[in-house]
Amino acid sequence: MLEEKKMNILMFSGDYDKALAALILANTAKELGVNVSMFFAFWGLFLVRDPAKSSLEDKTAFEKMFGFVTPKGPEELPLSRMNMAGLGKQMLLEMMDDDQTPTLTDFLNGARKKGVTFFGCKLSVDVMGFKEDELLPEVRIITAKEYLKDALESDMQLFI
Amino acid sequence: MLEEKKMNILMFSGDYDKALAALILANTAKELGVNVSMFFAFWGLFLVRDPAKSSLEDKTAFEKMFGFVTPKGPEELPLSRMNMAGLGKQMLLEMMDDDQTPTLTDFLNGARKKGVTFFGCKLSVDVMGFKEDELLPEVRIITAKEYLKDALESDMQLFI
Amino acid sequence: MLEEKKMNILMFSGDYDKALAALILANTAKELGVNVSMFFAFWGLFLVRDPAKSSLEDKTAFEKMFGFVTPKGPEELPLSRMNMAGLGKQMLLEMMDDDQTPTLTDFLNGARKKGVTFFGCKLSVDVMGFKEDELLPEVRIITAKEYLKDALESDMQLFI
Repeated sequence: MLEEKKMNILMFSGDYDKALAALILANTAKELGVNVSMFFAFWGLFLVRDPAKSSLEDKTAFEKMFGFVTPKGPEELPLSRMNMAGLGKQMLLEMMDDDQTPTLTDFLNGARKKGVTFFGCKLSVDVMGFKEDELLPEVRIITAKEYLKDALESDMQLFI
Repeated sequence: MLEEKKMNILMFSGDYDKALAALILANTAKELGVNVSMFFAFWGLFLVRDPAKSSLEDKTAFEKMFGFVTPKGPEELPLSRMNMAGLGKQMLLEMMDDDQTPTLTDFLNGARKKGVTFFGCKLSVDVMGFKEDELLPEVRIITAKEYLKDALESDMQLFI
Repeated sequence: MLEEKKMNILMFSGDYDKALAALILANTAKELGVNVSMFFAFWGLFLVRDPAKSSLEDKTAFEKMFGFVTPKGPEELPLSRMNMAGLGKQMLLEMMDDDQTPTLTDFLNGARKKGVTFFGCKLSVDVMGFKEDELLPEVRIITAKEYLKDALESDMQLFI
């Protein structure tokens, strides 16, 4: 039974297209009744930054600069292949729009509503200097150990 | 028994080197008697375009342009690290040739002959404006839901 | 029980940040008592080159040039997103240092000491012209077939 299955995605990449693939899988799996967790680490954390919140408190100079120059939330993510054959992100967005495909933000909000479990990587958050309240409220910070326990109990694990 | 095992590869990337890795695994798994499915999505679809066929019918302007400027079949795929240390694709191809390693096309044809199951992602095909008959005849278009059912029943899943 | 679990990582990428992610997972899994194998293929082989050793014997001109211009060991690996938002590798290293995070070399040595099994991909070694004694002594060269047998018996497989 699919209802007893569990899928775990380690979201490492901060690319628009890879985030889209991951969130389409997460939404679809939830529609099938599958239990889904996503662990956001390294560049993947940019996807779950709350665009409305960012803090300068208790940050080093590097962390402040880093927070400013990096993407704030889903729509600011770049494509993994920016210049591939001249295809820009705008072109992909227009093609998606022509087909009435939802945006990355829609899929992200869908995953939040459907109850996909969102974990943030403690080490990445510490190194990048993000505070828990700069991330979406659904994100719970866990260690690599906790991620591995969750992933090893899953029927399917993807590194994206 | 390996004969009862099943491997599923989600081919997201359109890079020559990653496609090579994926197809070497698919061929090798079939030689071991393992059941193999590959799900081509996003840039991965370029790998299973039939170089001899491409259509302009029922396409928007964007889709036509997209079809023209993107890789048509395996040998047109770029390296994931084009400029890494000055290593060009030609250099890799010559090194492979020196070792009498088969080309990407050879591995693709091997996978077709050995009966690897080829799926194309419906959403990607729709967004990119590809028609089913522009792809290799072995490719069956399925939804993300069908991919997930197949992947969740597999013993091993890779996102490449 | 986690002690009976097995994790397999196919290390394809030669990026500093992806290698860091893979080795943090490998170290953490070993701390949980999980059995871990890493299969280094393609660019991933650069991570397990022994920086102190490199040979010119029995190499073609291409292989010699390739050996010279590519990264020799962990600290020479580039970031997967060199220019992402102006973040350089030096900046990441300083942020890691501020948080007293160990370096990639520390995690690599940790994995060696903890007994992570290191495999090198025979085909990649042959194509790139590396000799077994140019790699870390822990690396055993195996075929894709042997990798697949190991991976298919694992509870979790990642392609990084």
